[in-house]
Amino acid sequence: MKNQPFSLTLFASQVEPGHYRRMPESAYGQLERQFRRAALIGEAASVLNWDRAVMMPAGSAAARAEQLAELQALRHETLVRAGTDDLLAAAESDPNLDAWRRANVAEMRRQWAHANALPEDLVTALARACAACEAIWRDARGAGNFAAVLPSFETVVGLVREAAAAKGAKLGLAPYDALLDEHEPGARAADIDRVFARLEQELPPIVAKAVERQATRRQPVRPEGTFPAQSQRQLALKLMAAFGFDFAHGRLDVSAHPFCGGVPDDIRLTTRYDEDDFVSGLMSTLHETGHALYEMGLPAQWRGQPIGEARGMALHESQSLLIEMQVCRSREFFDFLAPLLREFLAVGAAGAPANLHALVTRVRPGYIRVDADEATYPLHVIFRHRIEQAMLAGDLRPRDLPAAWTEAMVRHFGLTPSSDREGCLQDIHWFDGAFGYFPSYTLGALIAAQLFAAVRRALPDLPNDIANGRFAPLIGWLRERIHARASSATTATIVADATGRALEPDDFLAHLRARYLREH
Amino acid sequence: MKNQPFSLTLFASQVEPGHYRRMPESAYGQLERQFRRAALIGEAASVLNWDRAVMMPAGSAAARAEQLAELQALRHETLVRAGTDDLLAAAESDPNLDAWRRANVAEMRRQWAHANALPEDLVTALARACAACEAIWRDARGAGNFAAVLPSFETVVGLVREAAAAKGAKLGLAPYDALLDEHEPGARAADIDRVFARLEQELPPIVAKAVERQATRRQPVRPEGTFPAQSQRQLALKLMAAFGFDFAHGRLDVSAHPFCGGVPDDIRLTTRYDEDDFVSGLMSTLHETGHALYEMGLPAQWRGQPIGEARGMALHESQSLLIEMQVCRSREFFDFLAPLLREFLAVGAAGAPANLHALVTRVRPGYIRVDADEATYPLHVIFRHRIEQAMLAGDLRPRDLPAAWTEAMVRHFGLTPSSDREGCLQDIHWFDGAFGYFPSYTLGALIAAQLFAAVRRALPDLPNDIANGRFAPLIGWLRERIHARASSATTATIVADATGRALEPDDFLAHLRARYLREH
Repeated sequence: MKNQPFSLTLFASQVEPGHYRRMPESAYGQLERQFRRAALIGEAASVLNWDRAVMMPAGSAAARAEQLAELQALRHETLVRAGTDDLLAAAESDPNLDAWRRANVAEMRRQWAHANALPEDLVTALARACAACEAIWRDARGAGNFAAVLPSFETVVGLVREAAAAKGAKLGLAPYDALLDEHEPGARAADIDRVFARLEQELPPIVAKAVERQATRRQPVRPEGTFPAQSQRQLALKLMAAFGFDFAHGRLDVSAHPFCGGVPDDIRLTTRYDEDDFVSGLMSTLHETGHALYEMGLPAQWRGQPIGEARGMALHESQSLLIEMQVCRSREFFDFLAPLLREFLAVGAAGAPANLHALVTRVRPGYIRVDADEATYPLHVIFRHRIEQAMLAGDLRPRDLPAAWTEAMVRHFGLTPSSDREGCLQDIHWFDGAFGYFPSYTLGALIAAQLFAAVRRALPDLPNDIANGRFAPLIGWLRERIHARASSATTATIVADATGRALEPDDFLAHLRARYLREH
Repeated sequence: MKNQPFSLTLFASQVEPGHYRRMPESAYGQLERQFRRAALIGEAASVLNWDRAVMMPAGSAAARAEQLAELQALRHETLVRAGTDDLLAAAESDPNLDAWRRANVAEMRRQWAHANALPEDLVTALARACAACEAIWRDARGAGNFAAVLPSFETVVGLVREAAAAKGAKLGLAPYDALLDEHEPGARAADIDRVFARLEQELPPIVAKAVERQATRRQPVRPEGTFPAQSQRQLALKLMAAFGFDFAHGRLDVSAHPFCGGVPDDIRLTTRYDEDDFVSGLMSTLHETGHALYEMGLPAQWRGQPIGEARGMALHESQSLLIEMQVCRSREFFDFLAPLLREFLAVGAAGAPANLHALVTRVRPGYIRVDADEATYPLHVIFRHRIEQAMLAGDLRPRDLPAAWTEAMVRHFGLTPSSDREGCLQDIHWFDGAFGYFPSYTLGALIAAQLFAAVRRALPDLPNDIANGRFAPLIGWLRERIHARASSATTATIVADATGRALEPDDFLAHLRARYLREH
């Protein structure tokens, strides 16, 4: 039969009974419905995004882009609907709301303020400029041709500066903070600068010592052979299940770049399988599983409400990095993994736990951020953070970006990129208008280390649990202290409540010293 | 990374540049944007529907139902937006519109009128009643327990009668015609009754003679063995490609019930594979391929506009039945299929063309509509059409449905259902509120036969082409005369233009006599 999504019939069977109400509704009730609608539009788009990366035939890209653009416009219109400000004011003074509902109203105002902060003309101009620049960047990156993308990049930077100023004025924030706040609510450049300054001071000697130490040891051996994708998938499914991934509410598929998509009740995790080298794909799967567990652990009773969403990109990244870096690159994890590996893949002698652990904990300064180890990664982030601040302030012109990049690479790593392909063209972010996103990666790494230190104190058996594949105590701890809190508090509060102190780089630095320098 | 559908970044890269306009826009231009939005919401829902049937984990059903309900509500609100009537009136008197744009405005008015015809209270009540009844029906069907579903079915019938009356009053149509018109624009009960009366008279002797004739011949042998799903899939892909299915704009997957979903630029066709019996699944694939070719052949320049959509369910069904019944159950097709079958499946001697053809053209009166052959199928439809008219008119009470059903089965087929499971509970339609849908199936069969007779006159080599797997001339003919016309004319006009005369059952009856009685 021809499937018709919207016959009267399907309409009848799909409309949720509680959907139309007759009673006069409180301001809060109206806001819940409005933001639920916005969330559901976002959920639809999220599934379509997954489909685009995983299922969609190549020729359908233009049609899909139009569908997503329309949903985006609909969501935006829903958020900024006339009268929302008044409803928010009324709900804010409603004495009958409990703590979660009051917090929900605060999150509603935050989302509304961000959506409402830019004049529509500027949103449109920015959208066009970014779409054009990103398309040119795709070709320019391959050719290492910064000059080709410069004119449209200048337009993007100009408009982003304008948008940051407008948003900052509306939100009462400095321009860069206004951008930061979108990805990581409550993040402020002053705090990040302080933390990054310490990392910038302490990381280089750690990196240098780790490299030196590793050079003197026996080099790990990469498992050689052919590792069928189907077997890698079976192993991945087994590991995901061990961590508590709920396959009644999620799937595992393949995409060019691994990601965690879908919606909390329907997580779409993707990975990739290199039949010559299973290690990188496996680590990606475990990383994305951390994201998935966060989404799956969000409180079901707050689905579709701003307060029910994951807190921000830093906390999200902390959950993936805690699983990947803290747990799955630990020595104990390989005691659990080694027999499983032998069951699914012909790994040979290279599958010995100590060898595999050495393999996934090599420190090696390099040009490409996404290939970086956990010790050098923050340095990649720090100089991008500095550079984007400078561009936003007008202190660095877009045309001077390659020089600034090379200068930073030499300073941090002693490396000179041979072309802009392995230099300033490597990341999509800026060319697509995303400024203020990079710090989340490193804030996530710091949070992951601080959380892991806390959970080790709380669960003395944790190393032994990991060695035996018992992850339930760890995930239970995270669920209660991180996942279940959703957006009911700030990232700072959630971290402080879970760990007993404010976020600092100490645990992260201690973790690096312990893992790479054997200093305890 | 955690995939966020709506970061500023993604917004930027997804918004289509032409999306925001500054110029004062004509009424027609505004309507194009409004209906394009409605269409894009429908497209998003269509992909989500496919995903639900093919990819979605079981636990996500509730979340998906909410997403689809919200999109449905959004589409409805978009269609009935205040001021639409005035815009339509202005566009209707715009002297600058060409013929297609004028026809587009007429289709806009049609969609708007249907969407606007029911008071919201009634839509809500109907939606709730149908959702409740359909859920009860699912259990009641399995148990053959009509009494269990009767109370909620009575509610549904009462509301459908109310809705049909309201819609008819608004559209200036008789109540049943108002429902028919939704699935098959322009269809009227009087025309259908006339055609059905003739079928009711002429089909029974054809069926009786066909059964008698087939009883005297050697019985076809069903291929025995195990037919791996993967091999069936390879064969299906090969056949779809032979018919011109464009895999850059579509996919083939598996679902419990085969269907053609997705959107014209991204067709999602599904089928099923029974490893003991490949024939039924193969015929399903070919049937759905007919639907797919129609969608893929719609004019690209009218995407997202009402005039660019497929004309109606009867014409849609004609395209699937033309491919399945007229082409793929013809004797010639099996000359093409037999060597392919041997290439992909171990069919043995039963794979001989004459045997397979005999197998897929057996006539056998039975209880279940969806299992019926093409000669008895219209009788199933005709008595349903009579019964639903009587229920709608209030001449048949819902509680008397089982008796009316049995009476019809005895009269048409001499068969008495042993339970309501193989009687009036077998189809979802009425229990989900869909009245006026059944006639489309048989109208489609009649159109398919009349089109096929015309294309045989136009393409004298067609039988030979089919025997050699050359489908391009046939598909080209359909594309030009049916697919490319989209909704630019009525079904009646499209059929008359393509075949040289108004729709009549003659070609269908002649087809049955030729195929089953060897009368030419």
